[in-house]
Amino acid sequence: MLSTENAVVVKSSVTSSLKAASDVEAFKIESITNVQLQQIVNLDQGDPTMFEAFWKKVGEDLKTTIYGWQSLSYFANGKSCCWFMEPKLEQEIKILHNLVGNAVVEDRHVVVGNGSSQLIQAALYALAEPLNLPNPVSVVSATPFYSCYPQITDLVRSGLFKWEGNAYEYEKEGAYIELVTSPNNPDGEMRGPVVNRAKGMVIHDLAYYWPQYTPITSPADDDIMLFTVSKCTGHAGSRIGWALVKDEAVAKKMVKFIEINTIGVSKEAQLRAATILEMISHGTSSDINNFFQYSHSVMAQRWTKLRDALSLNNNHLLHVPRFPLHYCNFNRDFVQAHPAYAWLKCPPGINLEKILNEEKVRTRGGASFGCGPEYARVSMLGRGEDFDLFMMRLPKILELLASSN
Amino acid sequence: MLSTENAVVVKSSVTSSLKAASDVEAFKIESITNVQLQQIVNLDQGDPTMFEAFWKKVGEDLKTTIYGWQSLSYFANGKSCCWFMEPKLEQEIKILHNLVGNAVVEDRHVVVGNGSSQLIQAALYALAEPLNLPNPVSVVSATPFYSCYPQITDLVRSGLFKWEGNAYEYEKEGAYIELVTSPNNPDGEMRGPVVNRAKGMVIHDLAYYWPQYTPITSPADDDIMLFTVSKCTGHAGSRIGWALVKDEAVAKKMVKFIEINTIGVSKEAQLRAATILEMISHGTSSDINNFFQYSHSVMAQRWTKLRDALSLNNNHLLHVPRFPLHYCNFNRDFVQAHPAYAWLKCPPGINLEKILNEEKVRTRGGASFGCGPEYARVSMLGRGEDFDLFMMRLPKILELLASSN
Repeated sequence: MLSTENAVVVKSSVTSSLKAASDVEAFKIESITNVQLQQIVNLDQGDPTMFEAFWKKVGEDLKTTIYGWQSLSYFANGKSCCWFMEPKLEQEIKILHNLVGNAVVEDRHVVVGNGSSQLIQAALYALAEPLNLPNPVSVVSATPFYSCYPQITDLVRSGLFKWEGNAYEYEKEGAYIELVTSPNNPDGEMRGPVVNRAKGMVIHDLAYYWPQYTPITSPADDDIMLFTVSKCTGHAGSRIGWALVKDEAVAKKMVKFIEINTIGVSKEAQLRAATILEMISHGTSSDINNFFQYSHSVMAQRWTKLRDALSLNNNHLLHVPRFPLHYCNFNRDFVQAHPAYAWLKCPPGINLEKILNEEKVRTRGGASFGCGPEYARVSMLGRGEDFDLFMMRLPKILELLASSN
Repeated sequence: MLSTENAVVVKSSVTSSLKAASDVEAFKIESITNVQLQQIVNLDQGDPTMFEAFWKKVGEDLKTTIYGWQSLSYFANGKSCCWFMEPKLEQEIKILHNLVGNAVVEDRHVVVGNGSSQLIQAALYALAEPLNLPNPVSVVSATPFYSCYPQITDLVRSGLFKWEGNAYEYEKEGAYIELVTSPNNPDGEMRGPVVNRAKGMVIHDLAYYWPQYTPITSPADDDIMLFTVSKCTGHAGSRIGWALVKDEAVAKKMVKFIEINTIGVSKEAQLRAATILEMISHGTSSDINNFFQYSHSVMAQRWTKLRDALSLNNNHLLHVPRFPLHYCNFNRDFVQAHPAYAWLKCPPGINLEKILNEEKVRTRGGASFGCGPEYARVSMLGRGEDFDLFMMRLPKILELLASSN
């Protein structure tokens, strides 16, 4: 992650500072500072490594061992319409939702996928294919929408569905699919559909509807609800997502998509995800905290640091959304949302992503979310060191904004 | 897998046979025979469970353990164009190919996928998308072609590529993509492209180019070569495939497809696949045979049984292809092919799949492969019990064929 620029700084330090052995320590300190100053901080992707310390503390208490003879077959469960889903994973998914109270699981079909990206495509297919229309069904989402929806929808220029942009501006007749992310990525708002027209179909992407990010006010009860371990437990490398689906025909079509697209989902990842969810639901060993207690405190601390740093911003040049207190049924207390992303806004006419880039903080600019360049999304999900470097650079970023304004 | 019919047979046996305790054993034997007679034998899918006994024998010597803190990130390797690929897996893939001699790996880009189905789609995307044509690129394959190619290609009615059927009959002008499976699924033949026209692009699906199925005559050296652990080691449940790609731009586009489609590939499955490939390459513990020696003998035994059973078929009503001896560089001997599927052929005018179905043997009929109903594909990859049941029923199947002829 070191830039070439940084290598030059270190090299010139070597020639000028290493005059005596006693200088070595001073050099070390100097070069660490240089490294920190020059290091690119990547807060663009939502790579959820923020709970690593928790899993390290759990340590040997959580391991998954798979022998060579296990899980040879494509099949995992002849009784489920999702024939490639490990029964243990389905069971743990239902237990966790019942414990957290964030989604209705009774009489729902569970469909496992290779992350929620694949499940979005599976759901688009399941809703659009049976209509057998001559033209693709429009797919919309309200701005600011998740930046990957357009490319996921139009990946292979499907004749079944087509990205049509901002749901607020959608005015066509006929069938359409609205993608509703709640809490929303990037801005953390709780959301419902906005088009609300006849022949509308809705996919609810609830990846962030977990107590570390937002108050759990009631169990979601939508037709198609998508979740992922990436954002729930932080295990993005596993590529495990799941859908809770009311209509059996839709669930079967989603399974069909995953069957043709990837012939199912890794059994290793499913078995490990089941073990992880089980640990979260069933217990805490004596020396570790409850996962949601820990993860909630990580997110709350980061948001407090960010709000504190922005409050020093007398000119009010940089904003993040405010969230009202809501009673969280899981935490049994009134809590604020601490979203996975900070949706930053500066005065119009300034390219915020560019300003952040100048200070070597990589973020995702507003345009990717259907908004103006005065917005940028900053991931709050990265490693602590990266978040701290961002905090260190924030005063300089505010200075740059003041001079650009 | 028991049919309702069978439940009735067992029930009537219960009332008639259980007159005394001494009858119990006789009943057991009778009902086992009934079960065997009535059981549906599924030889439709190519679910590769035939090497299970080998992996059970390896036992505790091969296990993969993953702790809760491992593989949290989406990323695995910042240095590779395939940023989600575990470096250990790439290394073991290259070692195995060099050992077996079935593919050139030097200066090739390795791309890992969720099985080779996803890699086929990634390759179609990588070849078709940059052309930016107004109409989809034609995708063809010579009959008998792998039955899933049409549905994989046309899954979401792509505007980039479109299934156009039998390569032998392809006569359009302009860009096209030919899928070449070698050895071929379903008929086991070694193959090359058949269209061979300007603006042609070829994807080589080499899933079965391993020494248990066919003599390894030379390292394959094609532009895009696809492999999968499913058919190499029998671990279909892992969903791990890989591509060896000459052109970096094509490899990058394939990675892009997998990034948008599933944001990479399960790290658990990759790490386990690496461990399995390592075991195959590096060694044999004292009490177990070499994997390829074992798997070759399983396939050879099944083919011998099948050919013996068919040789009793005096009317020559049922045929399988014959394969010439070739020198296998890996086995250092002249060997015959023992393909993953038996491509059965009966006289024209008979629906072979239907005849097999009457004896409760599920197979895949010729139409799925672009051929007539006198063909059917029988998987040779299933569990020993299923294969033996098929052998038991073959005489009756031959009788049915004789009476249909």
